[in-house]
Amino acid sequence: MHFQYSGALLPMEKVLRDPIHNYIYIQNKVILDLINTREFQRLRRIRQLGVANMTFHGAEHSRFTHSVGVYEITRRICDLFARNYPQVTPGDGLWNDDERLVALCAALLHDVGHGAYSHTFEHIFHTDHEQMTQKIILDPTTEVNQVLSQVGEDFPTQVASVIAKTYPNPQVVQLISSQIDADRMDYLLRDSYYTGTNYGTFDLTRIMRVMRPYTGGIAFDMSGMHAVEDYLVSRFQMYQQVYFHPVSRSMEVILDHLLRRAKVLFKAGKLTGSFKPELLLPFFTDNFTLSDYLSLDDGVLNTYFTYWRHNPDPILSDLATRFLDRKPLKSVRVTPTTHAIIPTLQDLVAQAGFNPEYYTDTNDSFDLPYDLYDPRSKKPRTQIELMQKDKSLVELSSVSDLVLAITGRTSGDERFFFPKEMRGTSLQGQGEVFAPVYREFMQHIKNDQLIK
Amino acid sequence: MHFQYSGALLPMEKVLRDPIHNYIYIQNKVILDLINTREFQRLRRIRQLGVANMTFHGAEHSRFTHSVGVYEITRRICDLFARNYPQVTPGDGLWNDDERLVALCAALLHDVGHGAYSHTFEHIFHTDHEQMTQKIILDPTTEVNQVLSQVGEDFPTQVASVIAKTYPNPQVVQLISSQIDADRMDYLLRDSYYTGTNYGTFDLTRIMRVMRPYTGGIAFDMSGMHAVEDYLVSRFQMYQQVYFHPVSRSMEVILDHLLRRAKVLFKAGKLTGSFKPELLLPFFTDNFTLSDYLSLDDGVLNTYFTYWRHNPDPILSDLATRFLDRKPLKSVRVTPTTHAIIPTLQDLVAQAGFNPEYYTDTNDSFDLPYDLYDPRSKKPRTQIELMQKDKSLVELSSVSDLVLAITGRTSGDERFFFPKEMRGTSLQGQGEVFAPVYREFMQHIKNDQLIK
Amino acid sequence: MHFQYSGALLPMEKVLRDPIHNYIYIQNKVILDLINTREFQRLRRIRQLGVANMTFHGAEHSRFTHSVGVYEITRRICDLFARNYPQVTPGDGLWNDDERLVALCAALLHDVGHGAYSHTFEHIFHTDHEQMTQKIILDPTTEVNQVLSQVGEDFPTQVASVIAKTYPNPQVVQLISSQIDADRMDYLLRDSYYTGTNYGTFDLTRIMRVMRPYTGGIAFDMSGMHAVEDYLVSRFQMYQQVYFHPVSRSMEVILDHLLRRAKVLFKAGKLTGSFKPELLLPFFTDNFTLSDYLSLDDGVLNTYFTYWRHNPDPILSDLATRFLDRKPLKSVRVTPTTHAIIPTLQDLVAQAGFNPEYYTDTNDSFDLPYDLYDPRSKKPRTQIELMQKDKSLVELSSVSDLVLAITGRTSGDERFFFPKEMRGTSLQGQGEVFAPVYREFMQHIKNDQLIK
Amino acid sequence: MHFQYSGALLPMEKVLRDPIHNYIYIQNKVILDLINTREFQRLRRIRQLGVANMTFHGAEHSRFTHSVGVYEITRRICDLFARNYPQVTPGDGLWNDDERLVALCAALLHDVGHGAYSHTFEHIFHTDHEQMTQKIILDPTTEVNQVLSQVGEDFPTQVASVIAKTYPNPQVVQLISSQIDADRMDYLLRDSYYTGTNYGTFDLTRIMRVMRPYTGGIAFDMSGMHAVEDYLVSRFQMYQQVYFHPVSRSMEVILDHLLRRAKVLFKAGKLTGSFKPELLLPFFTDNFTLSDYLSLDDGVLNTYFTYWRHNPDPILSDLATRFLDRKPLKSVRVTPTTHAIIPTLQDLVAQAGFNPEYYTDTNDSFDLPYDLYDPRSKKPRTQIELMQKDKSLVELSSVSDLVLAITGRTSGDERFFFPKEMRGTSLQGQGEVFAPVYREFMQHIKNDQLIK
Repeated sequence: MHFQYSGALLPMEKVLRDPIHNYIYIQNKVILDLINTREFQRLRRIRQLGVANMTFHGAEHSRFTHSVGVYEITRRICDLFARNYPQVTPGDGLWNDDERLVALCAALLHDVGHGAYSHTFEHIFHTDHEQMTQKIILDPTTEVNQVLSQVGEDFPTQVASVIAKTYPNPQVVQLISSQIDADRMDYLLRDSYYTGTNYGTFDLTRIMRVMRPYTGGIAFDMSGMHAVEDYLVSRFQMYQQVYFHPVSRSMEVILDHLLRRAKVLFKAGKLTGSFKPELLLPFFTDNFTLSDYLSLDDGVLNTYFTYWRHNPDPILSDLATRFLDRKPLKSVRVTPTTHAIIPTLQDLVAQAGFNPEYYTDTNDSFDLPYDLYDPRSKKPRTQIELMQKDKSLVELSSVSDLVLAITGRTSGDERFFFPKEMRGTSLQGQGEVFAPVYREFMQHIKNDQLIK
Repeated sequence: MHFQYSGALLPMEKVLRDPIHNYIYIQNKVILDLINTREFQRLRRIRQLGVANMTFHGAEHSRFTHSVGVYEITRRICDLFARNYPQVTPGDGLWNDDERLVALCAALLHDVGHGAYSHTFEHIFHTDHEQMTQKIILDPTTEVNQVLSQVGEDFPTQVASVIAKTYPNPQVVQLISSQIDADRMDYLLRDSYYTGTNYGTFDLTRIMRVMRPYTGGIAFDMSGMHAVEDYLVSRFQMYQQVYFHPVSRSMEVILDHLLRRAKVLFKAGKLTGSFKPELLLPFFTDNFTLSDYLSLDDGVLNTYFTYWRHNPDPILSDLATRFLDRKPLKSVRVTPTTHAIIPTLQDLVAQAGFNPEYYTDTNDSFDLPYDLYDPRSKKPRTQIELMQKDKSLVELSSVSDLVLAITGRTSGDERFFFPKEMRGTSLQGQGEVFAPVYREFMQHIKNDQLIK
Repeated sequence: MHFQYSGALLPMEKVLRDPIHNYIYIQNKVILDLINTREFQRLRRIRQLGVANMTFHGAEHSRFTHSVGVYEITRRICDLFARNYPQVTPGDGLWNDDERLVALCAALLHDVGHGAYSHTFEHIFHTDHEQMTQKIILDPTTEVNQVLSQVGEDFPTQVASVIAKTYPNPQVVQLISSQIDADRMDYLLRDSYYTGTNYGTFDLTRIMRVMRPYTGGIAFDMSGMHAVEDYLVSRFQMYQQVYFHPVSRSMEVILDHLLRRAKVLFKAGKLTGSFKPELLLPFFTDNFTLSDYLSLDDGVLNTYFTYWRHNPDPILSDLATRFLDRKPLKSVRVTPTTHAIIPTLQDLVAQAGFNPEYYTDTNDSFDLPYDLYDPRSKKPRTQIELMQKDKSLVELSSVSDLVLAITGRTSGDERFFFPKEMRGTSLQGQGEVFAPVYREFMQHIKNDQLIK
Repeated sequence: MHFQYSGALLPMEKVLRDPIHNYIYIQNKVILDLINTREFQRLRRIRQLGVANMTFHGAEHSRFTHSVGVYEITRRICDLFARNYPQVTPGDGLWNDDERLVALCAALLHDVGHGAYSHTFEHIFHTDHEQMTQKIILDPTTEVNQVLSQVGEDFPTQVASVIAKTYPNPQVVQLISSQIDADRMDYLLRDSYYTGTNYGTFDLTRIMRVMRPYTGGIAFDMSGMHAVEDYLVSRFQMYQQVYFHPVSRSMEVILDHLLRRAKVLFKAGKLTGSFKPELLLPFFTDNFTLSDYLSLDDGVLNTYFTYWRHNPDPILSDLATRFLDRKPLKSVRVTPTTHAIIPTLQDLVAQAGFNPEYYTDTNDSFDLPYDLYDPRSKKPRTQIELMQKDKSLVELSSVSDLVLAITGRTSGDERFFFPKEMRGTSLQGQGEVFAPVYREFMQHIKNDQLIK
């Protein structure tokens, strides 16, 4: 059964036109069928970068485009491995092309469990997209599971175990999930393209060419050291310049508070109004099914926000409006030494008429651009190994000064968010009343920093 | 008043990062304020190409990105005109830079009246995005109108008249709306970029450089003839290859039928189910306000479709599912001579269990890539004029064989759409019963054409 | 013998970084050895576009880069053919992968016979680069021949017959030489890239995907019609905008006259001066060997021009200076009706002190962008055939209006070249004396045309 | 006089099409005239990257293209400065647009003194391109000087002093020459484009936008910190991956030895053969004029090498052939600890029949990617200053970990070059005799390193 269906190459390969990879080549019927499932098509309605398009307006691409991109990179690597490093005897550390299908399916599906406005939603409603991905793969009610099961009874479990990183072959796991995997390579290139920045570009073709399977997973030929270095620096840059952008984070803060407010009102029996957000209710009560989860997407949440613009609760309605009409909060950088000033500032915000619980926040965005393998870590990382001519391995940061500079060091910042009104630049209406409050507030800010 | 606000250049110009124009430069406070209006931000929730992302998955960009792009092209042309062809005396046919602000505002707002799934929605609910654009500009309840009114009492009317093509200065009108205008130039480049095709590329910088204001509007320096020719051919190609793609048109057919079915059910009092699509109801009864119109976006419609998946009406529920899960109809080309076969085919579709009213359709996509000015035409076109060294004008198709080939000739095709099931390729379940019907149906099709 | 060497795949494929194709993949030892021959390396010293860099300064790329590009496109097509259309039985019209090596070698070597400043040189010294290519392949003294002979005694003859279009398999011939071949596809993309224009871009990947071998050669799947159309239009545009640029043609005129003057002086025994252009002498006397031919390159000619700057003959020295220091002639368009004015103009040029034989010229640049097969033609063209689903063929211009517009119609213009001084714009020194002559001359010119 | 000519804006600006900057805009007659000088046109015959095209075949661009690119970047920065930071009162640290012309001329001419195969030529013949640039600007016999003198008697001296970094306004000097100047920004982008690599790309538009004139020269707005960081990393990467490529360095070694051999033979009276390399002779005797220097270009040297292929001296003839036919030496990395092995290896090379003086070499390529200002240094560097909102300055490496990692640390390697034959991979002919020598030689090499 397994071989029959998995062997079912399409009579003629199909292509999807893709701005990043030019074409995406679909050769297996399984892959085509997975793309056509309801759960996978739903990814078209979830933006890859959440609210980042509020800062970089071009970044409106969905998780669908990213997912087929990860599939395509994985497929190309499989082709290169099959041609250049085919397994001769089991255990020789080379590539066993029987692993191709499980790798391709895991690559395609790795993000299928993402929910509407993914990270913010998870924060408020305690969901986890990685677990949801596995659930979608394993639950017999999903079309995804039905397609995978045709390959073999055990096949969904295998695919899910790649996501869970428990699949026995480390090469397959590292293809999908490591510090330099198909997932990261696609999103850097894709997010660069759609934002219109070029920080995330690196030489994908060259990196794929220097990848080499070995017993411990995937290593990189020493000749590609600088290409790998360039990839890591690009990743670092994208985090600093795009993913951690203060305006996007501020819109996330608003979204987070908006959902929290709705939940609080609901629990207090105060989410009134003629309209009932049926599709969200199971999440307010922490009692949702997989089907509930799959009914949501960015557009559904936005639709509820559209209703809430007119909700009697002034905070809910104001936050919904700020979110839909893109009225970001302002922010400044906080350091451990200036953290103590925040309560004072929140006080001033309250004096100016804003509930600080919903109109201020601190948010830290930190990333660990690269790290060594550390078995004591909670999620130990697979370090990047370079293979020399004599097949011995060298860890990357030991030969690259640039990489060493970012190894094991988190980068990013913590920011304090507050209403734009506090800057006191437009003193219309009641603004004048609060002018002294605004002035005092602004005395605590200089050069994008809190000061004492 | 007018000059005070319109003269209000921002102390420091703002930039938006854009993949097509690299940066978009915002220099006037009016423009910044217009972008920040509720009505303009709403464009982020309406896709530029409707359902085209079902064929070209990358094309998920919104009308927001296109609108700021049209603004930017217009701004650059104004800069070039002001530098190279400044008016010396009124009526000399050169550029009067006092027209800049009205041109920029019209450029930015030219699409602000687009509705959710624009063309299909208009078809079913008899709305008109150009009229809505003017309404949004002129209605004192909109934030857009409130911003424009600060420039001058008469300013909204002026901007609206550019959209209506009744503004007295033909240069301003042609910048926004002619056979080679800022609108078309932006969408060709942008749609190319996001679809990942390259058919729509042409040399924008060069075309802008050869544009020249003259008494009759805008002409092009003879030295730029080939650049203009290239633009027209690119536009032709984009229509043939992207905008008229049969799969996108098939998804539009489904969307059209889905909305029609809902309307029919509603009018018949049969749109039952626990859920009420409140935001759509005013349109079912042809009795909607501007505010109703502005509450809709692609996501709201998709949300209703999500509910309708589970509607008791089998046609509504099936069409909603086909739309959300991307199950396109199939299609073949129809010619005047083969048109007569369609009823026979619809009959067969009915025999196979599908209501042909909702599961078949013919749809023609024709475009007139370029045409001469014809005063007898309903919408006479401004023909493209080339200016020679001695300032005399020559119409483009008289000097370009390529352009002549597409002048005044519509291009495109008419197609007949039908359920994929009719191809009889997967005879599972009840499929076998209908095998003879399918066979008969397919005998009418050869080489993507209907045959007798 | 043949199979041993040709089968000698490199243990590890080599790659060359290429701006157009990203990487060029070298898999056969034969190809690597051919690239390393003296005759092929010489192509690095001959510019692909001759003097076009005088107009488009970026276009300084050599025939070397183009040649490896043509090889790479051919290799990719072979890969696609071998995967999708492998021969099952001889004569079935599908691809026989035993043809790969001869195709690759012919692709790589198709331009190896180009000489210094190719077309101009040919014009003056009556050489022919296609014949020289075959000679280099067949002559046992060349390194190219020595490498090819290792594949098989007969192999050089086979490769040369592909160049001569007498090779029995039309698929191989058409890959290298037809109206849409690897040669043209590479040069359009490459020349676009290096000139910095974008007129020559088209969708190479898509065209390669729709190519199909058949008994008569190579056809294109009907689904790729628009991609082929786009290619032809791009080619047309590149001719109009780049290859026929008047300034480049004017520099060619100077080069042509400069070489002619040197030849005339030499034949008259008047090419005096301390320096002897040894490497050119065999060509002055029409008595050169293959080795003489291969000693020349653009730099050698330029070096002689550097010497000739100081030659006692004022015409030779002036033309050399104009060429090296880029002082183009001016030009205007001539039509059959205005041709008769030229002698008058030449007279005026003579009156202004320039020998019209060396300082004026007419030059027509015409191209036939696409044509049908015509057995009566001297060089009958392989027309472009589209293959429908039922495998029947349709000729391209019968289904594309755009192509029909350029089919069988030459395009281009004829121009009359004359010294810039005739425009009388800088009347320094003796200029004033000639002012009346200049004025009379310019009365014959209007809107870039000769007028009566 | 000065103002008349410098004010002479062209009636219509001219444009040059450029692949990097799209168009180069020429607005001043001075600039157009400088481009048309003999000395500047000569740059078309000198490759920007010397022999790097032997590794990256696309990199065949000349110093001409780079020079107009540096001009264009400078022009754009002047435009931005003039618009955003115009001087109000002398000494206010803002931009005085009277400096524009001297800045543009210096930018355009900064490389005009480069000679044929620049660095290698300088090494052998003790020339210095920066001094030659100043000489060309100042010497009244050059066309460059004649054009500049028309602006003002003193103008050539001013332009030359910018090159010499003694010009009083530090903003002008730093535009042309600092750690982030128009020169470096152009060559990184251009060399990336022509090599087809993408390591050198960075966000030029953004960097130009954040540049700010101040009393001490040019600073960068803090908001552009990451863009500057990205530029420095790109520069570092280009050095590691392109400029220091071992194959290019090996071709430089051959060129160096070839010129040295010719000089040695000449001095010993042994440079025989029928042909006299007249244009080189003044350099063999260290007694050359500016005119001698300007007669040389890459093609002239190649022409001499073409003659020397047949020179009776076997070393000269072999090296000329290796250079023209691209037969690079091989190389391995040397460290201070393995340096001592080199004499042993040279001995073995001699045993294998090669004169080690001409067939081996060590060559170190080190670059200091970024450094702080150090007044004690021989050439103190202008450190990169970031300007905060309150106008205070912060040095870049104090806020960027990535930059800190490369600050003040040279990067690169030292390599030992030797004939490919020593690897003993092709034991044809006399090869077998030397097999033991080869074996011994190769025992000293492992993983691209010398080992003991």
